[in-house]
Amino acid sequence: MKKKTIAIDMDGVLADIESQLIEHYNNAYGANLTKESIQGLSEEIAFGNRDLLRGILNKDNFFRTLPVMPDAVESLLALQENFEIFIVSAATEFPVSLAEKVAWLGEHFPFIKWENIVLCGSKRIINTDYLIDDHCKNLDYCMGKPIMFKAFHNVNQTHHVRVNNWKEAVAVLNATL
Amino acid sequence: MKKKTIAIDMDGVLADIESQLIEHYNNAYGANLTKESIQGLSEEIAFGNRDLLRGILNKDNFFRTLPVMPDAVESLLALQENFEIFIVSAATEFPVSLAEKVAWLGEHFPFIKWENIVLCGSKRIINTDYLIDDHCKNLDYCMGKPIMFKAFHNVNQTHHVRVNNWKEAVAVLNATL
Repeated sequence: MKKKTIAIDMDGVLADIESQLIEHYNNAYGANLTKESIQGLSEEIAFGNRDLLRGILNKDNFFRTLPVMPDAVESLLALQENFEIFIVSAATEFPVSLAEKVAWLGEHFPFIKWENIVLCGSKRIINTDYLIDDHCKNLDYCMGKPIMFKAFHNVNQTHHVRVNNWKEAVAVLNATL
Repeated sequence: MKKKTIAIDMDGVLADIESQLIEHYNNAYGANLTKESIQGLSEEIAFGNRDLLRGILNKDNFFRTLPVMPDAVESLLALQENFEIFIVSAATEFPVSLAEKVAWLGEHFPFIKWENIVLCGSKRIINTDYLIDDHCKNLDYCMGKPIMFKAFHNVNQTHHVRVNNWKEAVAVLNATL
């Protein structure tokens, strides 16, 4: 039987962009942001200096050096037994990130083939059975069933199935088999 | 009314990869390929030295300097009035090409926003109303209606609607309105 498909976001889902962004932002701006202090804030409010933020996201090696989310590797390996996994990252806004994201996946998730990597803008035309993402701008318009991965900016959003970590994500998906 | 969507391939459809590949391949291999001599051949037979071919496709600036297909710019501008256009290129196999493709589009098709650019592997999960592509490996499995853009390697394929150039592509698509 054909496996069901899952589109999985990178930043905030496979890659812990939050920690690294806080660190770079504090260093560049002299701010004192912490994971706790930005809970429930929108990205626009948490990282208020948008030019600075764009500068950080356009820096060489920013995306290449992101930490991997806890349990993400083991979870994808386990899910791959029953689902076909596509990595779908909104990346074309930051061209420097494109090759870095492919290299990052090659290092940490070598079992994901290039055929299953999608670097895009809008995710509106991505048609998989499930989408795991942290952003409502993607989850609200996707074609498959949305699964919201916890991030500081979405803790007050309640209109999607929520998972707080990769262990929960695997449990929710395996329950659909 | 919501516009219908078109996914448009890059290499062989918007970008004249054929001319540039022949030139690089002849220079590197001492071959005498011409556009005429490879008509009807598969890519594997036309460019038989696969390692050499991969070397060319991985070279810096190969994709950045491809010529634009005749009438492609004017055609996309015209189509954009009635359709939403997504550029969908199978590019993740060649990471060097990723940022180059975004830069190439920015130079020649500045009216295409980053939100509408998709650099992927398999196009099986791309869901648009139409796909214009030159490869059966994409056209045979796409979710929308396939439109085959003429290329040397597909001239003997007859199982898709065929267009020989951009003027014909615009005519075929506008006839669906």
